[in-house]
Amino acid sequence: MNSRTVTQDHLDETLDEHKNGIPDIVIGRLPVYLRTLKLLAAEGQEVASSQELGERLGISSAQIRKDLSHFGEFGKQGTGYNVAYLCKQLEKILKVDTVWPVVLVGAGYLGHALAAYNGFENRGFRIVGVFDNDPNKIGNKVGDTILIEPLSNIPLTVRRHKVQIAIIAVPAEAAQGVSDVLVEAGIKSILCYAPLTLNLPNHVRVEYIDPVIHFQHMTFYLEKNTSE
Amino acid sequence: MNSRTVTQDHLDETLDEHKNGIPDIVIGRLPVYLRTLKLLAAEGQEVASSQELGERLGISSAQIRKDLSHFGEFGKQGTGYNVAYLCKQLEKILKVDTVWPVVLVGAGYLGHALAAYNGFENRGFRIVGVFDNDPNKIGNKVGDTILIEPLSNIPLTVRRHKVQIAIIAVPAEAAQGVSDVLVEAGIKSILCYAPLTLNLPNHVRVEYIDPVIHFQHMTFYLEKNTSE
Repeated sequence: MNSRTVTQDHLDETLDEHKNGIPDIVIGRLPVYLRTLKLLAAEGQEVASSQELGERLGISSAQIRKDLSHFGEFGKQGTGYNVAYLCKQLEKILKVDTVWPVVLVGAGYLGHALAAYNGFENRGFRIVGVFDNDPNKIGNKVGDTILIEPLSNIPLTVRRHKVQIAIIAVPAEAAQGVSDVLVEAGIKSILCYAPLTLNLPNHVRVEYIDPVIHFQHMTFYLEKNTSE
Repeated sequence: MNSRTVTQDHLDETLDEHKNGIPDIVIGRLPVYLRTLKLLAAEGQEVASSQELGERLGISSAQIRKDLSHFGEFGKQGTGYNVAYLCKQLEKILKVDTVWPVVLVGAGYLGHALAAYNGFENRGFRIVGVFDNDPNKIGNKVGDTILIEPLSNIPLTVRRHKVQIAIIAVPAEAAQGVSDVLVEAGIKSILCYAPLTLNLPNHVRVEYIDPVIHFQHMTFYLEKNTSE
């Protein structure tokens, strides 16, 4: 097949995708460690043990130590990790010690929510363009500053800002067409909110966010109601 | 610790959470299989091989066969799976052969996007209540039909509809308080869009949706721009 479809985090373990011999599923956990460490730092904590991190995250301390050991020695036996230092190192490993420009396609409610979200910039990302094909939306602003542009402007913005990352926040029926435009413009990573599997060339990485996938995972563990 | 925090799908493999000996990470893949099978069914396809499913999903056919074998025999060697039958069986296993009522807390852009999303009902879920503490929002409608109610109405709605599942779509600083209200009302599963780790009792399952976690996973594989 000519498409590489990294569909769900759930599937990553099976992809045998390694970089420097590090399993992709380990890479996938690093952002979660980073988020927790930043939270600890914000709470004024200077040192954290793998046990403490594990308790916060609901995973074993051994797993955390093993994951981090792929990248070097970050803590001394018995003393725990220096929170600020480990944050810096994880940011460097994940390459978010810089700000990545991102384009967003789809200026509906979800697009507005994403454009208004103030948690991107301090974690390494900035939305530099918002695009929609609805003539009623084009020219309006999302958030305070970003103008909604037609999809035909995508290539220019991608080139100008050297954008590699895009968010697709359009309905499912429009998503494949949008992804084709993005790939053609040079986008290399796509975060897709539309509930489908995109057909993409091998060099483009895609991750999906689909709330129903999470719900259906949860219901397995619930007892059905007898009524409703 | 007194909280069980299933933070990210990435972490699920480490939770050692089993039900009937089936690893949680396997359960987590079933909704993805179901989504793909339903797509195939919608395209008119009656039979699908594990190879074909694997290609669509970017995972190995062996993994798919192994995952499904936890639940019985669904296909004959060499003939592939009956798409409609496997859909039905997966819906039964995941308990989404019914419609689960869901409450949504937060009527901002994200809440509106979720309330307007038409992909819930045919996949097993219906939003039966939307709640917000903003007096300017209470009494307005989201979508065509759902009235925004104050958080104080949550217990009544949860009881009336026997709701077990909630979505948190409020800012991070409000999320813990909202989750306390939900747990108190009897909610057992929470899908949280706020970028934090909730402190919850052991019997409450939580999953998180955080776009930055996906972005930071992607940037590991990208080359940094030299400018911007």
